[in-house]
Amino acid sequence: MSRTRGTDRRESIIRAAFEVIAERGYRGTSLAAVAERVGLTQQGLMHYFPSKEDLLTAVLETRDEWDLLNFGRSAAPPAMTPGQLADLVDYNATRPGIVQTYTVLSADSVTEGHPARQYFHDRYRRVRAGIAQLLERNRELLPPGLTPEQLAPLAIAVLDGLQLQWLLDPEEVDMPQSFRDFLTLLGTKP
Amino acid sequence: MSRTRGTDRRESIIRAAFEVIAERGYRGTSLAAVAERVGLTQQGLMHYFPSKEDLLTAVLETRDEWDLLNFGRSAAPPAMTPGQLADLVDYNATRPGIVQTYTVLSADSVTEGHPARQYFHDRYRRVRAGIAQLLERNRELLPPGLTPEQLAPLAIAVLDGLQLQWLLDPEEVDMPQSFRDFLTLLGTKP
Repeated sequence: MSRTRGTDRRESIIRAAFEVIAERGYRGTSLAAVAERVGLTQQGLMHYFPSKEDLLTAVLETRDEWDLLNFGRSAAPPAMTPGQLADLVDYNATRPGIVQTYTVLSADSVTEGHPARQYFHDRYRRVRAGIAQLLERNRELLPPGLTPEQLAPLAIAVLDGLQLQWLLDPEEVDMPQSFRDFLTLLGTKP
Repeated sequence: MSRTRGTDRRESIIRAAFEVIAERGYRGTSLAAVAERVGLTQQGLMHYFPSKEDLLTAVLETRDEWDLLNFGRSAAPPAMTPGQLADLVDYNATRPGIVQTYTVLSADSVTEGHPARQYFHDRYRRVRAGIAQLLERNRELLPPGLTPEQLAPLAIAVLDGLQLQWLLDPEEVDMPQSFRDFLTLLGTKP
């Protein structure tokens, strides 16, 4: 199989996984269901993605790339505005399947030997550095006594923690509004 | 079997589960390993806890009760001070196994039909209400324009989100210090 054809095949598998996740959520997404959608045997799919975790990690990486395309290249955290971060939270509220996948997989990755552990470890380092740069550019708005480096892990914790509460209880937790409340707390009104 | 003996047996199983979690983490904790420690067959243990999720939910409920004993009855969020919340985060930093269990199980519970979903749904409602009361008693310190009800989900999101980042990267993320930074942001210096 040529390298290009392998890449195309990987991309169609990831695309199918997005569809299955949107329809059935994290728990209902199996390698078998994704294989069927893309016209492969499960064995054939496992040639590309040996486990559910491997496939879902690739899905989340792809989501990050698509978000960059959707929001323009400026959507990498270092170049975003606080308002754009809030827009991204609005957008996430329209795709609970993928948010559920992120929440479950990132938490699961803290366990020993998890195949996605390195991915999330590195992603969080990168995003913390990016959010710190975003805040640095808005430094005059920030509360005194706290540096962008101190605030960055808090901002990311708020993003992740609100996703969890919203997924469990969308009637009581308004994720987009709560994130805007956090921006108000930071002083960087969206 | 008498009711009391059944309760005693449940308690020894939960105690054994705490030990196994502390030694082996979430992933290494199986019903078989807990059964062995407590001198039961796996089948015998499943009479009390039909699944790993059921057992771990009971472990987390017990942890909440023990924390109340450790920190005094005043440790229920409505009666706590911000400083006591920070102390609880310090304490959690000494027990990564149980924090890992909380992080994985709470995230997993957002999936459809998960046996712990109702438990976490109700627990988050209760804790949000409790933290809102805690903040209400410190209202004069809070930033203007945000109510205790708006700040409560943010405080809980910070607690949960910092646990995730700390478990993935304890070298870069100082969970207790970061939570104190959040209290500084709120205006309620610990």
